[in-house]
Amino acid sequence: MELKKIGELITSNRILLGPGPSNYDPRVMKAMTSPLISHLDPEIYSILDETIELLKYLFKTKNEVTLPMSGTGTAGGETAFTNVIEEGDKAIVCLNGFFSERNVEMIERCGGEVIRIDAEWGKPIDIEEVEKTLRENPDVKVLSMTHGETSTGVFTPLKEVGKFCSQTPTLFVVDAVPTLGGMDVDVDGWNIDICYSGTQKCLSAPPAMAPITFNQKAIDVIKNRKTKIQTLYLDAIELMRHWGKERKYHHTLPIVMIYALREALRIIYEEGLEERFKRHEEISQLLKTHLTEMGFKLFAQEGYRLPMLTSVEIPEGFNEKVIRTKLLNEYNIEIGGGFGKLAGKLLRVGLMGYSCSKRNVYYLISALKEIMS
Amino acid sequence: MELKKIGELITSNRILLGPGPSNYDPRVMKAMTSPLISHLDPEIYSILDETIELLKYLFKTKNEVTLPMSGTGTAGGETAFTNVIEEGDKAIVCLNGFFSERNVEMIERCGGEVIRIDAEWGKPIDIEEVEKTLRENPDVKVLSMTHGETSTGVFTPLKEVGKFCSQTPTLFVVDAVPTLGGMDVDVDGWNIDICYSGTQKCLSAPPAMAPITFNQKAIDVIKNRKTKIQTLYLDAIELMRHWGKERKYHHTLPIVMIYALREALRIIYEEGLEERFKRHEEISQLLKTHLTEMGFKLFAQEGYRLPMLTSVEIPEGFNEKVIRTKLLNEYNIEIGGGFGKLAGKLLRVGLMGYSCSKRNVYYLISALKEIMS
Repeated sequence: MELKKIGELITSNRILLGPGPSNYDPRVMKAMTSPLISHLDPEIYSILDETIELLKYLFKTKNEVTLPMSGTGTAGGETAFTNVIEEGDKAIVCLNGFFSERNVEMIERCGGEVIRIDAEWGKPIDIEEVEKTLRENPDVKVLSMTHGETSTGVFTPLKEVGKFCSQTPTLFVVDAVPTLGGMDVDVDGWNIDICYSGTQKCLSAPPAMAPITFNQKAIDVIKNRKTKIQTLYLDAIELMRHWGKERKYHHTLPIVMIYALREALRIIYEEGLEERFKRHEEISQLLKTHLTEMGFKLFAQEGYRLPMLTSVEIPEGFNEKVIRTKLLNEYNIEIGGGFGKLAGKLLRVGLMGYSCSKRNVYYLISALKEIMS
Repeated sequence: MELKKIGELITSNRILLGPGPSNYDPRVMKAMTSPLISHLDPEIYSILDETIELLKYLFKTKNEVTLPMSGTGTAGGETAFTNVIEEGDKAIVCLNGFFSERNVEMIERCGGEVIRIDAEWGKPIDIEEVEKTLRENPDVKVLSMTHGETSTGVFTPLKEVGKFCSQTPTLFVVDAVPTLGGMDVDVDGWNIDICYSGTQKCLSAPPAMAPITFNQKAIDVIKNRKTKIQTLYLDAIELMRHWGKERKYHHTLPIVMIYALREALRIIYEEGLEERFKRHEEISQLLKTHLTEMGFKLFAQEGYRLPMLTSVEIPEGFNEKVIRTKLLNEYNIEIGGGFGKLAGKLLRVGLMGYSCSKRNVYYLISALKEIMS
């Protein structure tokens, strides 16, 4: 590559209907162009406070330790596990897709020992099996569950497990990366001890930050650690000393991304959570109806289908890669394909945050009809 | 806080002459407003390739594993240490300020044992002592050195140490957070094995990413680890599988921040490294001359003064906090104060990247004269 030839940045104007990132509201872009101030400027503190308040609203929590970590969704998962798991700790991991599989890896890298609860990809986790496994393993430190599996389009209900878990010393750790801001995630009501997400899905901010919340039960576990957390960067308590009242320097915060997140959260607050969930539900239903009428078979088990991520099997005689490439090159629409063992077998359509609109559904359906006719 | 009262984002238009972040060129803001594409869009790959090529130019390296990590400068340090340090590994850490002190903490959190080489704050590290300590401890895995100490304004020359280190199995790990893009950082020429930086100082992009480079000696050490790296998010080799030819998903990259970084790097390339270093040197000299004439005493030892960060002692009878507050509130200029044991005793003025201009120096000097007269 000749350096002189690296020209102006030009990207296509994509309609982002994949498994994330989603498009963001022009208001978010406008917020990003606000003058840069420093992470220690007195003006930053109200911005941090307001971002935390808006996050608490979104997570439906009163948890004091609620903040966006300076990394993308994967950093959220790693923050959750690395803050509580020590060498030799046991963790139950519920697995029904690519992202829950990753939790095993993250816990093992922290030195944890994993007890697996597997469900078929496309199906939710068996709640009774979770409760049984928890009863049989009272010394388990963490129960990890993925609320919505972006790789398959399935969600697992959390309320019952949370209630059961709250009567034990085990921490209920929930991955809400695709679901937060698109369907109900009731952290306090469902007794979730640690919950993390990402900014680039139903929050519709650029990918860069990982909102996370810890309740007192989780904080007590962290405070009773025998060893120091392996990471300084993702040490949530230390970072909270900057985000919280103490205002102690931890690292240079990604200010522009905080501007973006704050504006995205304001938009969510203005719409209202119930209205927003209803929009995701209704527009997703519109998409699912049209895709079914076209001959696609919905992949996720009925009753457990995510609103923000619809997975369908490809009808006989069509090639997934060809469909996706034409959508991208001829219509500027991005959707997702299958992951791992589902590669080539699925289309995955995201309707997240700002991207979740009737206009996008109708354009996508029309484009698909043209391509497949 | 009442959520309804969280209004539009309004920030002051600061002139950022603190220890970072610096202001960025309007071209960087323009690049950030490019339409968002996904981390798996075919269009992203040339953007990643070009960013890597520009980073190699800046680091003066041919290292294949060169990329910006998805975190700020602190994440760069943590990436360096966590990828190579295992439980019980020995590391020599050279200390002469706040940021080198942090390296001790990061290494210890990885399970490493630290041998300290201390120098007085404001003075460079004694090179002979480093070589002697290395000779006495041939089993040391890492030698950690901070090129420029943002907390004091001092740099330590790297070339000799790198040459000596290259004849041993020890890895020479360099923090170039404030120096990269503002003074010479010759990774290959100086035998640096791992070098990391941040985007928000002399690169003049927003804070969010940590450029890092690993040479073959470092990669071999990583490949011969007995245990898995504790982190998935900062596992540089795994992440390189996305940034490199394999194009394998690792995590959702902070696309908008990559847009910003790529443009900031293009600006650096257009200016030319030698021209850029000369600009930092000359404009810094202008500032130092004026400050000295005003009665400030330069804090850092002569011959080892950073161009991009000038630290001065406060003349008798003046209050550091008052000066900084007036500069901020009445002139919209941010500069830094002292850190830790130097709190209240220093002013620290950054002239980094786009912020490093005659205009800013003259405005700052005039403002200081008004305040102190």
